[in-house]
Amino acid sequence: MEDGFSLKDSTIGLFGLGLMGGSLAMSLKGKCGNIIGFDSHLPTLELALSKNIIDEAESLSSLSGGSRREVIRDPQSKRLDILVLATPVPTIIDILQQLPSIIKHPCIVMDLGSTKRDITLAMSALPENFDPIGGHPICGKEKLGLQNADANLYQDAPFVVTSLDRTTQKAKSAAQQIVSAIGADLIEMTAEEHDRVLASTSHLPFLLSSALAHSTPQEFVSLIGPGFRSTSRLAGTPSQMMMGILKSNQDNVLNAIRVFRNSLDEIELSIENKEYAILEDTLNESHHSYERLISAF
Amino acid sequence: MEDGFSLKDSTIGLFGLGLMGGSLAMSLKGKCGNIIGFDSHLPTLELALSKNIIDEAESLSSLSGGSRREVIRDPQSKRLDILVLATPVPTIIDILQQLPSIIKHPCIVMDLGSTKRDITLAMSALPENFDPIGGHPICGKEKLGLQNADANLYQDAPFVVTSLDRTTQKAKSAAQQIVSAIGADLIEMTAEEHDRVLASTSHLPFLLSSALAHSTPQEFVSLIGPGFRSTSRLAGTPSQMMMGILKSNQDNVLNAIRVFRNSLDEIELSIENKEYAILEDTLNESHHSYERLISAF
Repeated sequence: MEDGFSLKDSTIGLFGLGLMGGSLAMSLKGKCGNIIGFDSHLPTLELALSKNIIDEAESLSSLSGGSRREVIRDPQSKRLDILVLATPVPTIIDILQQLPSIIKHPCIVMDLGSTKRDITLAMSALPENFDPIGGHPICGKEKLGLQNADANLYQDAPFVVTSLDRTTQKAKSAAQQIVSAIGADLIEMTAEEHDRVLASTSHLPFLLSSALAHSTPQEFVSLIGPGFRSTSRLAGTPSQMMMGILKSNQDNVLNAIRVFRNSLDEIELSIENKEYAILEDTLNESHHSYERLISAF
Repeated sequence: MEDGFSLKDSTIGLFGLGLMGGSLAMSLKGKCGNIIGFDSHLPTLELALSKNIIDEAESLSSLSGGSRREVIRDPQSKRLDILVLATPVPTIIDILQQLPSIIKHPCIVMDLGSTKRDITLAMSALPENFDPIGGHPICGKEKLGLQNADANLYQDAPFVVTSLDRTTQKAKSAAQQIVSAIGADLIEMTAEEHDRVLASTSHLPFLLSSALAHSTPQEFVSLIGPGFRSTSRLAGTPSQMMMGILKSNQDNVLNAIRVFRNSLDEIELSIENKEYAILEDTLNESHHSYERLISAF
């Protein structure tokens, strides 16, 4: 027992068995007691059970669809040591609001959501029997769903953990044990700092990829090479998932766009004025910045 | 003999043994008669000979450095069936201007340069003993040099071939045989059309990656994930190589930036005004555009 939580003896509830939740279950397999999967999509639960990714399944209705969501089955009888929410951001917030009517026993609650301010705010409104802690693993793929889940998805990935004032040592220990078990690197960070940084390192790159794909005429398809594929790859992310993230981080995303625009303006101006020595300086600065940012990998 | 050129009996001269030239030699190995490598960097020639990538080597001095370039060794005695220029764009143009003083025998001349208008213009000024044709394989890596050369680099890549008015059927056949031998897909295109399309599909993505790397603070390094790495990857391309391309395609590059900016403005405005239905429509359009552009792969 470490601070009251022992991963290997724990019963883990997992809301959402998509890419992130499915990969988490796969990478925790054999390292925890029991995994109970919750999902609104019955075929996903059946697939997860048949592939032995989860030990038990609870079916939920309309978890991610419609404006009014309702849980059919009542998992009140389940004693969970920790509940992990692995759905898109708006659904995490919905679940947090409904949680008191779903789960009665005391329970740690962690999420894997892509923004942290709105989620930790919703967590702070939970009744006392819940012990909430925010989480965000910085990994993924543009192809979502359980069929793309991967036991190695979290290996060596940064994993942000955001404690609330009320977060206990037990919940922090649970997060640490999970992050360590899946091979990720724990980074403690406030929700404000997380959302500010991720706007630049994740949400902005998505928007640039989208704007690039948006502005490229279809008749250019025969001349698409590896450079375009790499730069535009994030445009393959389902828009619906990104909408919740962008709404939840509007102020920081706008600021990240403005900072990017300054660099693009500088480049454009030097090309327009044929100030090629200035352009080369800017491109060299970019190159060095890239090498330092990526050097850790 | 097909139109007077037979790849398997040909002697191929190759100027530049970097990523593109080295990969070409590797993928032509055993499919042509003889490959003679020309490079200004002696260790590169020695490496290429020792790895059996080329059959003979000719050392050139200062091929890519300094403003005044001079060829030391005189390969006039060599009879080449085709000379392939695999150096950065400005060096290709320099070589074309010097070619009459380097090679006296009749010879097909093809290039692998990233822009086509300036290069085919320089080709059109060649004396009659040269039979020029433009080429541009749409592949590569951000890591250059012979050490990164790869016999499969050209496999399934689009390979643009740009004929001049004076280009003979023999030169066209030579280009076709080479493109086919290395497993690439030949696309015939004018220089104007090539440069216009590549500004959008290649030069713009490089500038977006550069501006992204430029605008991202170094202290965000711990939260860099696969999305950022993919979107910023092209910023790892050496600036010097890109400078020649950008100078040579200034008008089209500026236009591509402006078209991109329209899409980014649209996205920014809908985020700023919280017009999320409009934003989702735009992101869905981007997603569909991406899927159609990338579907061929």
